Amino acid sequence: MQTITLRVEGMSCNHCKQAVEGALKKLTGVERAEVNLAEKKVTVWYDETGATVEQMKEAIEDQGYDVVDG
Amino acid sequence: MQTITLRVEGMSCNHCKQAVEGALKKLTGVERAEVNLAEKKVTVWYDETGATVEQMKEAIEDQGYDVVDG
Repeated sequence: MQTITLRVEGMSCNHCKQAVEGALKKLTGVERAEVNLAEKKVTVWYDETGATVEQMKEAIEDQGYDVVDG
Repeated sequence: MQTITLRVEGMSCNHCKQAVEGALKKLTGVERAEVNLAEKKVTVWYDETGATVEQMKEAIEDQGYDVVDG
């Protein structure tokens, strides 16, 4: 199990939190996803044999949010 | 058919817009509901033989938003 924290722009409310967490949890290998709205971050717990970080970023962007590098 | 415009606090994104419009459209007699996020308002087109304005306010508050008087 690995974890990664991504910075996400545009999440403004609990619906946004649910949308991002839900999209991540649908990916193979993602065990848990937790958004911190105030910090504009999402932390993902995942099995590295499943979805890639690139696929996680795409899942977030498909929900209409921007993943910010760095 | 009547229309009313209510002032709603706390709607921050398109998910909020969908939540409020969806909750209103579920009420008997509500034909149309349209949120303006920038103006913090929702306009409702409704048949006066159906749900009351009080019930509309409750439906909005049940979604977690505040209806502001005046």
